Amino acid sequence: MTGAALHALQYEPIVRRALEEDLGRAGDLTTDTLVDADTQAEAQVVARETGRVAGLEVAMAAFRLLDPAVAVECFIADGERVVGAVTLAHLSGPARAILTAERVALNLLGRMSGIATATARAVVACQGTRAKVVCTRKTAPGLRVLDEYAVRAGGGGNHRFGLDDGILIKDNHIAAVGGVDTALARIKARTGHMVKVEIEVDTLEQLDVVLALGGVDAVLLDNMSPETMAEAVRRVGGRLLTEASGGITPDTVAAVAASGVDLISLGWLTHSVRNFDVALDFRYR
Amino acid sequence: MTGAALHALQYEPIVRRALEEDLGRAGDLTTDTLVDADTQAEAQVVARETGRVAGLEVAMAAFRLLDPAVAVECFIADGERVVGAVTLAHLSGPARAILTAERVALNLLGRMSGIATATARAVVACQGTRAKVVCTRKTAPGLRVLDEYAVRAGGGGNHRFGLDDGILIKDNHIAAVGGVDTALARIKARTGHMVKVEIEVDTLEQLDVVLALGGVDAVLLDNMSPETMAEAVRRVGGRLLTEASGGITPDTVAAVAASGVDLISLGWLTHSVRNFDVALDFRYR
Amino acid sequence: MTGAALHALQYEPIVRRALEEDLGRAGDLTTDTLVDADTQAEAQVVARETGRVAGLEVAMAAFRLLDPAVAVECFIADGERVVGAVTLAHLSGPARAILTAERVALNLLGRMSGIATATARAVVACQGTRAKVVCTRKTAPGLRVLDEYAVRAGGGGNHRFGLDDGILIKDNHIAAVGGVDTALARIKARTGHMVKVEIEVDTLEQLDVVLALGGVDAVLLDNMSPETMAEAVRRVGGRLLTEASGGITPDTVAAVAASGVDLISLGWLTHSVRNFDVALDFRYR
Amino acid sequence: MTGAALHALQYEPIVRRALEEDLGRAGDLTTDTLVDADTQAEAQVVARETGRVAGLEVAMAAFRLLDPAVAVECFIADGERVVGAVTLAHLSGPARAILTAERVALNLLGRMSGIATATARAVVACQGTRAKVVCTRKTAPGLRVLDEYAVRAGGGGNHRFGLDDGILIKDNHIAAVGGVDTALARIKARTGHMVKVEIEVDTLEQLDVVLALGGVDAVLLDNMSPETMAEAVRRVGGRLLTEASGGITPDTVAAVAASGVDLISLGWLTHSVRNFDVALDFRYR
Amino acid sequence: MTGAALHALQYEPIVRRALEEDLGRAGDLTTDTLVDADTQAEAQVVARETGRVAGLEVAMAAFRLLDPAVAVECFIADGERVVGAVTLAHLSGPARAILTAERVALNLLGRMSGIATATARAVVACQGTRAKVVCTRKTAPGLRVLDEYAVRAGGGGNHRFGLDDGILIKDNHIAAVGGVDTALARIKARTGHMVKVEIEVDTLEQLDVVLALGGVDAVLLDNMSPETMAEAVRRVGGRLLTEASGGITPDTVAAVAASGVDLISLGWLTHSVRNFDVALDFRYR
Amino acid sequence: MTGAALHALQYEPIVRRALEEDLGRAGDLTTDTLVDADTQAEAQVVARETGRVAGLEVAMAAFRLLDPAVAVECFIADGERVVGAVTLAHLSGPARAILTAERVALNLLGRMSGIATATARAVVACQGTRAKVVCTRKTAPGLRVLDEYAVRAGGGGNHRFGLDDGILIKDNHIAAVGGVDTALARIKARTGHMVKVEIEVDTLEQLDVVLALGGVDAVLLDNMSPETMAEAVRRVGGRLLTEASGGITPDTVAAVAASGVDLISLGWLTHSVRNFDVALDFRYR
Repeated sequence: MTGAALHALQYEPIVRRALEEDLGRAGDLTTDTLVDADTQAEAQVVARETGRVAGLEVAMAAFRLLDPAVAVECFIADGERVVGAVTLAHLSGPARAILTAERVALNLLGRMSGIATATARAVVACQGTRAKVVCTRKTAPGLRVLDEYAVRAGGGGNHRFGLDDGILIKDNHIAAVGGVDTALARIKARTGHMVKVEIEVDTLEQLDVVLALGGVDAVLLDNMSPETMAEAVRRVGGRLLTEASGGITPDTVAAVAASGVDLISLGWLTHSVRNFDVALDFRYR
Repeated sequence: MTGAALHALQYEPIVRRALEEDLGRAGDLTTDTLVDADTQAEAQVVARETGRVAGLEVAMAAFRLLDPAVAVECFIADGERVVGAVTLAHLSGPARAILTAERVALNLLGRMSGIATATARAVVACQGTRAKVVCTRKTAPGLRVLDEYAVRAGGGGNHRFGLDDGILIKDNHIAAVGGVDTALARIKARTGHMVKVEIEVDTLEQLDVVLALGGVDAVLLDNMSPETMAEAVRRVGGRLLTEASGGITPDTVAAVAASGVDLISLGWLTHSVRNFDVALDFRYR
Repeated sequence: MTGAALHALQYEPIVRRALEEDLGRAGDLTTDTLVDADTQAEAQVVARETGRVAGLEVAMAAFRLLDPAVAVECFIADGERVVGAVTLAHLSGPARAILTAERVALNLLGRMSGIATATARAVVACQGTRAKVVCTRKTAPGLRVLDEYAVRAGGGGNHRFGLDDGILIKDNHIAAVGGVDTALARIKARTGHMVKVEIEVDTLEQLDVVLALGGVDAVLLDNMSPETMAEAVRRVGGRLLTEASGGITPDTVAAVAASGVDLISLGWLTHSVRNFDVALDFRYR
Repeated sequence: MTGAALHALQYEPIVRRALEEDLGRAGDLTTDTLVDADTQAEAQVVARETGRVAGLEVAMAAFRLLDPAVAVECFIADGERVVGAVTLAHLSGPARAILTAERVALNLLGRMSGIATATARAVVACQGTRAKVVCTRKTAPGLRVLDEYAVRAGGGGNHRFGLDDGILIKDNHIAAVGGVDTALARIKARTGHMVKVEIEVDTLEQLDVVLALGGVDAVLLDNMSPETMAEAVRRVGGRLLTEASGGITPDTVAAVAASGVDLISLGWLTHSVRNFDVALDFRYR
Repeated sequence: MTGAALHALQYEPIVRRALEEDLGRAGDLTTDTLVDADTQAEAQVVARETGRVAGLEVAMAAFRLLDPAVAVECFIADGERVVGAVTLAHLSGPARAILTAERVALNLLGRMSGIATATARAVVACQGTRAKVVCTRKTAPGLRVLDEYAVRAGGGGNHRFGLDDGILIKDNHIAAVGGVDTALARIKARTGHMVKVEIEVDTLEQLDVVLALGGVDAVLLDNMSPETMAEAVRRVGGRLLTEASGGITPDTVAAVAASGVDLISLGWLTHSVRNFDVALDFRYR
Repeated sequence: MTGAALHALQYEPIVRRALEEDLGRAGDLTTDTLVDADTQAEAQVVARETGRVAGLEVAMAAFRLLDPAVAVECFIADGERVVGAVTLAHLSGPARAILTAERVALNLLGRMSGIATATARAVVACQGTRAKVVCTRKTAPGLRVLDEYAVRAGGGGNHRFGLDDGILIKDNHIAAVGGVDTALARIKARTGHMVKVEIEVDTLEQLDVVLALGGVDAVLLDNMSPETMAEAVRRVGGRLLTEASGGITPDTVAAVAASGVDLISLGWLTHSVRNFDVALDFRYR
């Protein structure tokens, strides 16, 4: 997969918090009552549907953080495609730890692989066009690093990681300064040299104004029909990056891609996640 | 809505973390560059589809935590049904704070209302039956308090809040002790008096064994056909609570409910959330 | 010991906080001034009175978290009885780390073993009766997981781990809704299936009302004389669990147990802890 | 009371953690089910035995942190003596918040007042002597700021707040450098000018050596009989502060004080706390 | 000042941590011993040298976070120039809080104003040239948001806020892929559309290669003489942004600026801060 | 070096926070794009100027915390003097981790060695006098443990670690009680036996009053000329420790030391740090 790696330093606090909320104040009542502390077990982490895996290392950290005695071997890298029932990882160690951390691990793996799988579906739908699939800031609260990593694992790209990561001018911003020209002038005067600038336009007329003014790196074509987008792409003529946005789903993305835009952003990838079906097959030794 | 309230003490750390991840190290470059610090604005938080609202107070806390000068008035309570485009809340105050916290607020409200709306849909599908809709521990990592609250707002109930909140005996647990009888004996001997006990069965034969042994409060009927469930309910005869589980969705829940079970648990409610469509209508003063 | 285990994930933040408050900003001035960094030592953790040990692993984590080079060997499991002076664990490694972490380790071990020892004393006093000794939520702020674990190590049981762990209806709750009948009806309608319900009664008349209404799993007999409790147990006739509560100490618990109640809860076990006498015997290598 | 005040900045994280551990993931099931959100109530915080109050402001913060709508009026200052049943504070506001935060507030107030009361008892026992009562580092893990503040409220003093707060040389330290003379020389050479130095002696012979060497501010007389202590005080002759230590309790402190020592340190004050009896009298408005 | 604002959400944890480390476990022994709790005072925060103020609101938060009863009025905005002794803010409220928070407040204000003043000096030195002064990632650990904000207050700009905020290719990166061409091709293929790309060159030959290859937004001229830089600027001819870097100080910045570069980055601004002289003038009421 | 060691428990949270702020939400875009995950490398940490090293272990923890696979070997101990270009440590392991953690490590090492070097310079300037160089509480917010440790590494001593670490009476404190005599009486009555007392005097007249009253361990001579200080030292005559303070720098410290004071405190050591020049020499394997 392309893009930046995810460091344990970044995901371990999230996994730890998930374990803490599941252990509560008294831990796993069922397992600790029924399974002796010295019972050993093995388990397979298995995918039960076709898609892209993401977050395997993140998810497996749940076992390791609960009990370092659990040995984990992963058979697949994040971003790889699995077809049908596939064993993703093998666990061996104390039965208690494997049973106790199971739900947290599967919750992480199911969500992240769900995002990667949806992303890959959108990427496939765009094949043969120049369109690159990217996500938005519509991520689950506190989970942006995981959500955006999962998009990368699915073959997509990221947009801004946060509000301090590039300029994206929307109509509400323009209204505040009185016009696109003033807005762009102010941006030009005050923005750092490592900051890219994108502006949202809703109509071809607005696009023409932006093209005349210049000073932006990309233009976001918001909620346009594929036909209007195609005309927008034609008018831009390669001078700026063009990005399509607004309620696009994996079902509608192909039509959008055909308009010739450079980028298509889908909030859907991270705000409407369908869980990827994963499970744990367990065996006592 | 029924069930326990959500305290600011519980949700504020989550909202704060979401703001921090969006502000990053340098805050909202676009807004702070284009909008003056003393510009005032008003905004409406609007629902743009039909469903159940949840998390309005949680989401509005994003504005308050970013800038206490933002005044918020809510027009609707969590758990209420909205039809079509409805104004949920009114904001007024510094334009910068409203623009900067917008995405975090909408991410929270969209996810929580999405859960509540899906829950309400399942609850409606069960009307006329005795079945109560409940969620599972398949929640987003670190967001369990929000996810389970949203289920309550949608009219559903919660199952265990975590591993220390009741006993739920699964086949992997039984395998560890060698048999259902030993498992139940051990549970009886070692479990606190405030702890309820539920056991998972996959077949009617297993159910018969449990019924013969006694000592549990509820039985979880896992991945059975509606017909088998109906037979299971008949055999239980009201002596225990019966819970249906296993891949149930709002589309299939009605058929399951018709079997006569007391409870239906759907991981789907929280692991495959579809965002509820909410937006901010903004106006400078 | 019975009941759930304590995970390092749960106790390490507490041990770490205790070390941080003892190290302050400049660490162990005395030890670092007088003992060279490469001096090695051995030490024995010894019990100096008869009782039950709890928290040995938790306490030993203080050495490990301060310096992983300290090797620890434990000779006794939590919950075991020690008579007179007994060596509980052996330490070897850098002398500085052993001297610096000593007080934090002994504070943890002394408090937890004190709770376990008092619990065991109450359990012994109830032998020959059906009464099980349980603790309450009267724990030291922030230390509930340790305190309740120590009670389990002493042979006692836990009551609710927190406010979200079962329903316990007191008179102030009943007053809010106007009567026991309304209260129980509301509980029945709104409470999850994994939640047990207990109600506090102060008089036999209140008990009769509860018995007539039904709908609870247990009844808490508050501040009754042993005679009244015996009569209460007779009236309940095994239909509900009976719990005695209210100012009971290890000195008075036997008389209460003789009344035939199922459970006796003692706030005393965790709110009035007497330290168990432990020490470190130190030797340079 | 004398000594430093306790800042909200220092105690609020402790109170918040205590509330979080009691609320768990789902909050106060009982109260939220039975008491409506708009029900108002009043309550009195009452002492039910004679002693010293400590931590009233800390404890009342539990109500305020849970719900700022709870108004609190305190009638007594930390460190004051109460005789019999006395109203300490008055609460008014949302009934839910008062009921939900009650246990956390009483746990804080009961523990801190228990420490203050025991301290005051020891202080009274020393009246007429020159002995000042001080505590040790044997505090509950993570609660040192509260425990040591409560000692001050009871009229006692603090010893070192932590390992970086003064030099206290024990026999294990001396063994590491080979002798008292080397130890004191090293301390003199390496210790900051704001750091006081105390040394522990077990015998009069050791005391004579220390007196001959000089270079310390205080001498800790460990586990000596009152007679030996009196002789030690005589030999010191006012040149150094003398401190008695070792298994002293409020019962034995008077005899120790009679020996003429300047200070008596009791680990007992904080490691074997008996809860002070406080309660909440509740009334709906 | 231009650039993004600093939110209380971002700086309050830093101020709180600074207060906690100064209060330690027992708070301000001197003030609490000598000043009564109800003593009121007024104080002026004064600058005692000429320069730029930054962090006034951040620093004043120390008083407010310690005690909300301290009223603060600021007379100057961050980024403004002060000449000689100037009153920056007025405080009134409890004397204890003002005395206790004084050092933390002045430490914050002195450091941030020191950075702003040094930045302003470099900005002045560049006047009349096209060069913009920017900082680097050489900030104090954990204080980047404050340090970079102070640079903005001094009239400078920021470079990357962190490793995820733009691409900056150095020689060690190029060595890993075998050549500039491969490096730039990989960047082009894998980098998000909101990410700017800068590359470091040490010689004019390397610059020529980069210019021939294209695909970058800016070129960092590292450790070149002003003459070589002037030649580099000439060769670039406005096609890319040019940035000078490498051991530049306010003393040498003018000569660098004369070379015609667009940007000059100085690690010096944040890694070698000279405190700006501020003080508190105190008066009891 | 003398004085207390720094524990990983104390510095790791600071290093972790520094890594987190540099990684941001998406990690090292440049390195992860250009360097393969399995590329191995070696690197030397080198000093590039003459001075004292401090924080080498702290800085190297950045590599270890990012990736435990990085092996670190240090060739020099904190506090040692290095002349010219010297290799301080050797790193080997994953190239990505070494490149990604480089800046955080160098920021730590550069700041801490800068403090140690300035301290050593002041210590050298005092050679041949009785004056000991100490720092103040003018440290970077949140970094006091590192800053004060670096002073010790440079051969200096610490003053108070915080407000709870000794009494330091200033004129504002005296004004609150009405006079030096009342202030000293109150301190004597209320201060713990492990607490040293120092008082600030601005004139010889104030010094005479303090000498007449007694009851302090040290006197801080604030902003006096070297001549006045010499007279002050003469008047004190060895009865108290004398400390010089007020705007002293390494350039002026020698003249102050010649006055015969026992201690000289320099805020300059930590509030105006000049970075020590360190770098990473990198080589792929």
